[in-house]
Formats: sequence, C-alpha cells, structure tokens
Amino acid sequence: MEQPTIGDAFGEMIRDAYAVRTGIGPRPLAGGRYPRPVIEVIERDDGLINGAPADHYLNEPGDWQAYDRRALRLCRGRVLDIGAGAGRVAIELQRRGIAVTGLDTSRGAIEVARARGLRDTVLATVDEFAEAAVRYDTFLLLGNNLGLLESAERAPVMLAALARLAAPGARIVAQGSDPYGTRDPVHVAYHERNRQRGRLGGQLRLRLRYRELATEWFDYLNCSPAELTALLDGTGWHLKSIDQQDRPYYVAVMELDS
Amino acid sequence: MEQPTIGDAFGEMIRDAYAVRTGIGPRPLAGGRYPRPVIEVIERDDGLINGAPADHYLNEPGDWQAYDRRALRLCRGRVLDIGAGAGRVAIELQRRGIAVTGLDTSRGAIEVARARGLRDTVLATVDEFAEAAVRYDTFLLLGNNLGLLESAERAPVMLAALARLAAPGARIVAQGSDPYGTRDPVHVAYHERNRQRGRLGGQLRLRLRYRELATEWFDYLNCSPAELTALLDGTGWHLKSIDQQDRPYYVAVMELDS
Repeated sequence: MEQPTIGDAFGEMIRDAYAVRTGIGPRPLAGGRYPRPVIEVIERDDGLINGAPADHYLNEPGDWQAYDRRALRLCRGRVLDIGAGAGRVAIELQRRGIAVTGLDTSRGAIEVARARGLRDTVLATVDEFAEAAVRYDTFLLLGNNLGLLESAERAPVMLAALARLAAPGARIVAQGSDPYGTRDPVHVAYHERNRQRGRLGGQLRLRLRYRELATEWFDYLNCSPAELTALLDGTGWHLKSIDQQDRPYYVAVMELDS
Repeated sequence: MEQPTIGDAFGEMIRDAYAVRTGIGPRPLAGGRYPRPVIEVIERDDGLINGAPADHYLNEPGDWQAYDRRALRLCRGRVLDIGAGAGRVAIELQRRGIAVTGLDTSRGAIEVARARGLRDTVLATVDEFAEAAVRYDTFLLLGNNLGLLESAERAPVMLAALARLAAPGARIVAQGSDPYGTRDPVHVAYHERNRQRGRLGGQLRLRLRYRELATEWFDYLNCSPAELTALLDGTGWHLKSIDQQDRPYYVAVMELDS
C-alpha cells in the first residue's frame, strides 16, 4: 500500500469547499458527473480516523458556534488571526472595520481567503512571522487553534514568538477543548497511552488527508484549563479569563505579565 | 503510527448512521456533546482517501438515484439482495410484497437491517451461502455492488456460486460504474498502474475505515460494459440488457445461457 503524497491537503480541501459553496473554480465530482462532498479526513496516530464536512471552514457568522461569536468581542486593537484558514473569522473582523492580518501555512487556504476578500494575509509560520517589525494587540486562535500550542515543549516557543509580535498590553484570545470529559474508551485509552509516553493526555498526533494528499504528522494540543495554566507558567503570559459556557469548549484570554 | 483495528467498520458505521437518523441507540458525539457526522472513509492502495456521508445507506426510495428505482422494476420472482447493507433496497422490496433475502458479511449492518424490519437476512459470503438449498430468481447487486465481482480471477467464482443458487431462468441485476470516462489525473494514473500490474484498470484495492476500525483490504471492480461482457465469457452467464441512461453508472441484467 502506498502512502499519500505530502502536500497542501488542507488548501486543496478548502479550494474544493469554496468551489462547492460559490461555484467559483472546478467543483469536485464523482464519476465526472455527480457532486462529490468535500470531507476533511483526520487521522490520529493510534489508527483512529474521522471525517467531517469541510464547509464549516467557510461558514457565515450566523452559522458559527456561540463561543466563536463571543470570542470576537474579546478582540482589541490590531488582530493577528493565527491559522486563519479560508478567512472565516478574519473576513468578519475586516467587515467590522477591525485591522486584521490572516496568517496561515496553507497556500491554498490563503489563496481562498484572498479570493473571498481578505486583504492582509501572510503565508508563514508564527515563528517565521515573528521576525517581522509589525506588532499586534490581539492574537486570535479560533476553530480550536489553541491546539497550535502543540505540546509542553513547543508551547513556550510559540508563546515567545507571540510575545515578540506583541504590542504593549497585547492579549491572546484562543478557543480550546478540554479532552478529559469523554467516556469514549478509544479516547480514554489514547490519553493514557500519551501519558505513558511522556506526552500530555490530549496531545494529539494527527495528519490531515484529502484525496491523494496528506500533511506531515503534527502535534495538536487539546488541554484542560488547568493544563493551559501550567503551560503558561514562566512564559510571560498568564490566563486573564476563561469562558466555559460551552464545555468542553472554552475561550481563554491570556495577557503578558506586566 | 499504529494501524487501525481490523473489524466490522462498515457495521459500526451503519449502526451510528441509524442512531443519527432514528434516535435509536447512542448517537455519535464530538466532545461528548455535539453531534458527530457519520462519514464513510474509503482508502485506496495508491494513498487516495475519500470521505462521504454514510446516511445514503439508509435513505428512502424517494431519495434514491433514478437508476436504483429503475433497477427494482427488473426484479423477477424471489430476490437475493447481495451486499444488502442496512436493508435500503431489500426493505423496499419487502414493502412491495416481494420475497427477498438480504445477504451481507457485516454483522452490524445485518443487525440494523433487522431492526428496520427486514425479515429474511443471511450473514454470510455468497460462497458460503451457495451451499444452501434455497434458489432465487433474481440476484440484486445495487449500490455499485457489481464491484463485488472483484477481479477477473474472482468474477467466475462468484458467478458460479450464483449459478448454484439460481432457479431456472434466473437473472442478475447489477449496478456498476464505468471508470474510464474520468479525466482526473489521479484516477487515470491509477488505472494505468493497475494495468501494469496485470489488473483491470478499475480493479480498485480498497479498505473502509470508521473510527478505530478498518476492514481488510479487498478488491472492488469498477468495469466498463465491454469488460463486463468479457468477464462473463465462459461463466454460463451472458449480458441480456444494459441501462446506460445515467453514465457512468449503469444497470446490467445478466441471464444464464439456456
């Protein structure tokens, strides 16, 4: 059995989802004739696989989860949307007259975000972009993108990069998921397996697959609010507030120590 | 990276799709709270992966493709529905007062078909069931199940088993897909790769994955009507008619030579 090709699986998926939603660009077809649904496939390193329709990456604020809408009200000043994807959130901020930059590592996603009207985009990792001279007041990580902290090893590096990009008084507004409420034995066993390997329980090792493409394997961190608090220790950032109205999902606001 | 567990991936998926559609049984949840879509993931041996919502396995005749509805009119006498799945087709035949047996190798699918009211079910392969004393007038392979012919090697074995189960004048009504109309370079390359390995171009090597489970790898044959005709040669079956109104999909009727 051959492995998939490493490439911009996320971007190709977003391109197809955009074509389906708008009719712009070739729409994915089955049998050269029937619309093919655009499904994101996420593989975990224990053999678990999950598919989910990709259209939510493009949905309008009226269709968002309530915690996403509440998170937007927590933005202050100039915003860097990290993992901006197809621009779902950044475009809404731009509509509201807020200065926003959309950052993503997926070329295809950035191209779709620009086609949808997002003006200020960056194709880079946070680490790469942290060398820029620009400063932000809010770092926004929605769509579960608190997961981009990756691991206990990686989180301080990411948080240091954000500190370099931070204007005085800057904040991080990040949506996370507490993974430990589940009773699903597959997930409970996975958390335990992670801990035995010295990883955080919810330190997922994932790759995305879309048709013939896959991303490299990457860590994506689902952590509890208590784990997040511990991860922040010594980074210069602290937890200012946390919105847990929609458990297991939460929106955390972090600020730089003064 | 660990491999998925070999098991009844199809059956578990059908069970979840049934729970979502009816509210019977535990519904799949994300984060222990939000409905999780039930997606069938199909992996091909060249690294291609596709996801599609599983709900169509349970849909009502009003939502079927037109070729499925036309295929039902081709049934005569006592029907064996091969690869009956959740009973979509067999239950409709039963509703119409037709004697029908639903055969599948997935225990979970058979359980759902029975829960939905399908009375006569068999959990077996066609080869196993061909030892039974019962005889059928129509072998029905819808939902692209002409693919169960698998390969040039396997097709005559399957067709011989059906001949053993055949009442005088029996027919096969099978829906297939002609794979060769595509211009998708991924598929064109796959067909070529297959031929170089001595396989039929559309002889797909697949496995289904659902959460932590996967089936074994199996062959599933998408063949052109011309290839089908060639496959039948010497088996005692011949092509009687073919409905190609909805290319690339077709419904073939095969009968035993007299």
